[in-house]
Amino acid sequence: MENQLEPVAGGGLLDRRLFLKRGLVFSAATAVSLQVFAKVKPFDSNLPAWMLKPGEPFSNYGEPSPYEKSTIRWKMENSMAPGNGVSWTPLHDLEGTITPNGLHFERHHNGVPEIDPKRHQLLIHGLVEKPLMFSVDSLLRYPMRSLFCFIECGGNSNAGWRSKPIQTQAGYFHGMASCSEWTGVPLSVLLHEARIKAVGKWLIAEGADAAAMNVSIPLEKALDDCIVAVYQNGERIRPENGYPLRLLVPGWEGVLNVKWLRRLHITTRPSMTRNETSKYTELLPSGKARQFSFFMDAKSLITSPSPGYKMDGSGLYQITGLAWSGRGKISKVEVSADGGNSWAEAQLQEPVLSKCFTRFRIPWQWQGKDIIIMSRAVDETGYQQPSRKMLIAQRGKHGYFHYNAIVSWKVAADGGISHVYA
Amino acid sequence: MENQLEPVAGGGLLDRRLFLKRGLVFSAATAVSLQVFAKVKPFDSNLPAWMLKPGEPFSNYGEPSPYEKSTIRWKMENSMAPGNGVSWTPLHDLEGTITPNGLHFERHHNGVPEIDPKRHQLLIHGLVEKPLMFSVDSLLRYPMRSLFCFIECGGNSNAGWRSKPIQTQAGYFHGMASCSEWTGVPLSVLLHEARIKAVGKWLIAEGADAAAMNVSIPLEKALDDCIVAVYQNGERIRPENGYPLRLLVPGWEGVLNVKWLRRLHITTRPSMTRNETSKYTELLPSGKARQFSFFMDAKSLITSPSPGYKMDGSGLYQITGLAWSGRGKISKVEVSADGGNSWAEAQLQEPVLSKCFTRFRIPWQWQGKDIIIMSRAVDETGYQQPSRKMLIAQRGKHGYFHYNAIVSWKVAADGGISHVYA
Repeated sequence: MENQLEPVAGGGLLDRRLFLKRGLVFSAATAVSLQVFAKVKPFDSNLPAWMLKPGEPFSNYGEPSPYEKSTIRWKMENSMAPGNGVSWTPLHDLEGTITPNGLHFERHHNGVPEIDPKRHQLLIHGLVEKPLMFSVDSLLRYPMRSLFCFIECGGNSNAGWRSKPIQTQAGYFHGMASCSEWTGVPLSVLLHEARIKAVGKWLIAEGADAAAMNVSIPLEKALDDCIVAVYQNGERIRPENGYPLRLLVPGWEGVLNVKWLRRLHITTRPSMTRNETSKYTELLPSGKARQFSFFMDAKSLITSPSPGYKMDGSGLYQITGLAWSGRGKISKVEVSADGGNSWAEAQLQEPVLSKCFTRFRIPWQWQGKDIIIMSRAVDETGYQQPSRKMLIAQRGKHGYFHYNAIVSWKVAADGGISHVYA
Repeated sequence: MENQLEPVAGGGLLDRRLFLKRGLVFSAATAVSLQVFAKVKPFDSNLPAWMLKPGEPFSNYGEPSPYEKSTIRWKMENSMAPGNGVSWTPLHDLEGTITPNGLHFERHHNGVPEIDPKRHQLLIHGLVEKPLMFSVDSLLRYPMRSLFCFIECGGNSNAGWRSKPIQTQAGYFHGMASCSEWTGVPLSVLLHEARIKAVGKWLIAEGADAAAMNVSIPLEKALDDCIVAVYQNGERIRPENGYPLRLLVPGWEGVLNVKWLRRLHITTRPSMTRNETSKYTELLPSGKARQFSFFMDAKSLITSPSPGYKMDGSGLYQITGLAWSGRGKISKVEVSADGGNSWAEAQLQEPVLSKCFTRFRIPWQWQGKDIIIMSRAVDETGYQQPSRKMLIAQRGKHGYFHYNAIVSWKVAADGGISHVYA
């Protein structure tokens, strides 16, 4: 028994398979029980009020419990142009891998258009033999494909570039990333039908918002795994996520996943739009800038415990979080509970899918002392999430986009949790 | 080229891999184009109204488009007791495999309690060494597990027993089935901590609704793959689905998945509660009744096209639908477009998961004539979904629960679709 609760790395990390070994920990002979968790309360023999009267009636469309009102997207709008801004997914309040549609992060340039699907059109033109115009209804006849996939804004986690660690909840730091089951028509089917000319190498995708937001995408990616998405988590995409049509560009930066998709223009070269020149590029220490840095590299963070939570005394806990990579599957997540001196492998929740959130978990016995916890992800290409020091060495101190360094939380002896650079 | 559009079975079913063969169908040399789908419309050179003004602002929690107001749960309440009844998931309006939380089917016996999670308790008692009482907060410290899993009411599809085929939309016939990513504490962890006595063989699970709905579950299943679920599709479970705690009993009939879970009583025998004696049992032609018929056997149905849709002329379409089995993974779905004379294998959307909705799809060239389409599923145990005739032969004409026969839709020459017994 003693061996089972023996740490596998510093700071009290336990074997990730601990709870998968059925009956081992909890047998009658067990010296140490998980009772440290349970905080047994006296049994209230009075029936609660809600058992003494009939409950609420049925509903056509459900809503979260009134007791969960604090689980919201955090909004930051431009006061000069309130339709320009961002809202973050509360990753610290969520579990599993799916983001409910009401909580998928938002990034808009000029607000959310309210589009009549009967009047919306998708045009494919430019270097094609046969320009095509689709109604939404016509697309619904096409073959569809579903995939579980994250979308992450290129600017996600950019508070990490600040000289002092931002103090906010995990989702309001890293929650410009969300994960859904997307369903739509493979873009390759539509492009092949339009018959692209041999000189066509890029595609300019444009949205039907008041900003006519547009970006350039290499045709090779468009023909690979992109889809014109119509459904998100089973139902039609919601307005703030692109109703009625969104371009899904799996694993690449969020801005390419054009919402309210209305136009695909085939060209020989990128269009050098605002959002691939003055924005979504990265000035390097050398004075040169990275452009078209499409891939969202591997990242991970611990969502629980995380800032805003208060530890309930020493004892057994679970450390859990999310990892993802725009280059494929997550192959490993390691967790440290001693500021990076030692690492232990976390359990990955099956199924591990490509370009999709992956939930990791590891049991942990907290001794009630000051400690720093962190996670690092490795993807199937072998790429390992960098330390903050390494990222800054490569990209400089004044970055903005593509921040994916290891995230560190300090668990203080008083049970409070804060963000630190370690 | 001709070969690609050559049917693989009667009624115009085409090779399921047709759209997966990139560029084959749509090359410049193609004689037959998918243009039959596209219904090309003239390009409207005026910008739509929604591009001419800033859009709506950000929101803390999103809602579906106002244009999707018809995508709702259909409710059927007992007029004498409005908290008693059922609502159906609109499967005919959905795609992919996830059911959004607002559309998960409901079955309540005495309404939806509004539970304060700070006051809710879960008791494990009876034949245990150490009775335990958990607060919701204490459970949040426990190790968790996520799984994608359907829940289906034992009474789902029971209109199939009627002597005449019911005319309604597919979801309002078969939508007492929904699928989510559930996350919670493995029940085995909690039961092992309570240390079950050797004589304990059953578990009575009770909900905190005003009906104190309860059922009996064999301990073997409870220790296998059940979880005390806290999250549904990432967020906390909604009130109508059991907030704050629901027992998840993967693959078994919905009534066992006790909502608002408050009590687990370990016993030697089942409790013979109302919902396992007068309800949720099946009288057979022999006069004997099936009881504790836990498993939801393999089922499938075509969700599109389905009743309520109007075909838009002859040409290429996609037939798609859902299949699932309470005994494991779906291994094969076959589709017929000639009333069952010939069958072709449909494409299954990856990943195919155990006890989870599986989306199937097959291309289809409709000739514009009267035709009957149907699907049949096979699961990994080799079990094949029965015809209606076979089901009635086994179970009689007056059944109510566990109806899983092959479903047939008639596509009429005028494009209308109706439910038929074939």
